Amino acid sequence: MRENTGMLHIVGVGPGHPDLITLKAARLIQTASHIVYFAKKGKKGHARTIADSLIADTAQEIRLEYPFTTEISFHDPAYREGIDAFYDRCAETMQDHLRRGTSLVLLSEGDPFLYGSCLYVFDRLKPFFPIEITPGIPAMAGSWSAACTPISHGDDVLSIIPATLPLDHIVVKLSACEAAIIMKVGQNLNKVRAALTQTGLLSRALYIQNATQPLQTIQPLHEYTNDHAPYFSLIMIPGRQKTR
Amino acid sequence: MRENTGMLHIVGVGPGHPDLITLKAARLIQTASHIVYFAKKGKKGHARTIADSLIADTAQEIRLEYPFTTEISFHDPAYREGIDAFYDRCAETMQDHLRRGTSLVLLSEGDPFLYGSCLYVFDRLKPFFPIEITPGIPAMAGSWSAACTPISHGDDVLSIIPATLPLDHIVVKLSACEAAIIMKVGQNLNKVRAALTQTGLLSRALYIQNATQPLQTIQPLHEYTNDHAPYFSLIMIPGRQKTR
Repeated sequence: MRENTGMLHIVGVGPGHPDLITLKAARLIQTASHIVYFAKKGKKGHARTIADSLIADTAQEIRLEYPFTTEISFHDPAYREGIDAFYDRCAETMQDHLRRGTSLVLLSEGDPFLYGSCLYVFDRLKPFFPIEITPGIPAMAGSWSAACTPISHGDDVLSIIPATLPLDHIVVKLSACEAAIIMKVGQNLNKVRAALTQTGLLSRALYIQNATQPLQTIQPLHEYTNDHAPYFSLIMIPGRQKTR
Repeated sequence: MRENTGMLHIVGVGPGHPDLITLKAARLIQTASHIVYFAKKGKKGHARTIADSLIADTAQEIRLEYPFTTEISFHDPAYREGIDAFYDRCAETMQDHLRRGTSLVLLSEGDPFLYGSCLYVFDRLKPFFPIEITPGIPAMAGSWSAACTPISHGDDVLSIIPATLPLDHIVVKLSACEAAIIMKVGQNLNKVRAALTQTGLLSRALYIQNATQPLQTIQPLHEYTNDHAPYFSLIMIPGRQKTR
């Protein structure tokens, strides 16, 4: 690792409400000269929006805009190729600053190391630059708190299951735990419904969208009849619901 | 639910470092007239210690002291009976205040709804009083951030497994996920080692103690040779470690 390089701070900004940012993250964002964030085309960027009131007027902002979102299927080889090239460019942009001794604050929704997009630049920059991670409240913790529904007691096993897995995998994973969070629901909602029906869990499942944010929605999944869910939604299957 | 009762705020104070408290939790603690916390005999209380610098001098403190910690085995029927009676008394103490219209802030280590002791009073008071949950950074997020080691990428399934389960259960649960956090290690360390050996995961496991706190220890589990681990320790088995 070179000397006199900048430090990369990867900072979790939590599930959505700006008050759910930690004291440490708030201080790092407020004093940052350079703020980096991911954003979809035409959008302000979710992490950027959460941190909005803390960013100094004088801060230089580095926007990393995804080349596509849903135009190319995740299963198309062009997706992998395009997204790898995108993260390569992101890492190059960031290392130009770090090499010159400029420290960066990269904003990450939820907790950075729990399925965060920041992992793709972390892997590319870790061998060469000092990196510090500031944890954030995961989206799932914002969700179960907003729902006022405990997720796990005693010796419940809690599994976090990406909805991008094949149906039969989801069924197996759901069968091996007492409580579950299903993430990355989006276009996979009907597959998740099928998996929950097969495992007899549909009636216990809660659908949670925009937790801790203005348009928060919390309802039994069987009452949510849409075929798709927005990106910032998850499904919660609470574990044992009595402590005695 | 009666009118004019106090509100019970259950507030997560995060993994240990006071800077990892959220802005919302800090404000609730600073302005609380009554602070409630659990503590072991002879100890200050872990959540109370984390929040120390935020508690007003004028705040009334309500200490809920566990009747025993390890003197009675978890498997002894006297444990269940004694601990249930303890939580009944805690709920009674708290409802005396809530009925009189006094709001309470109950401090919880990590995130309240992720295996928190507060669940035992939550269940007892929920039918009668308004309760608001403020999420906290879970101990596991403090741990993987401190270790600078991502826990889960892409479609990894992450399972959170209590070490209190029988050996064969832990083996089954470990076999059903790509990444795992093993909690409540304490007296169960040798059992956890056996489960990790059986599943071929021992060489990947990290032992993490007092994450984000002054006596933080992070090392490969196979280098940690003690038979027991303190309560505030966990074992992390990272998932896929490359994003490409």
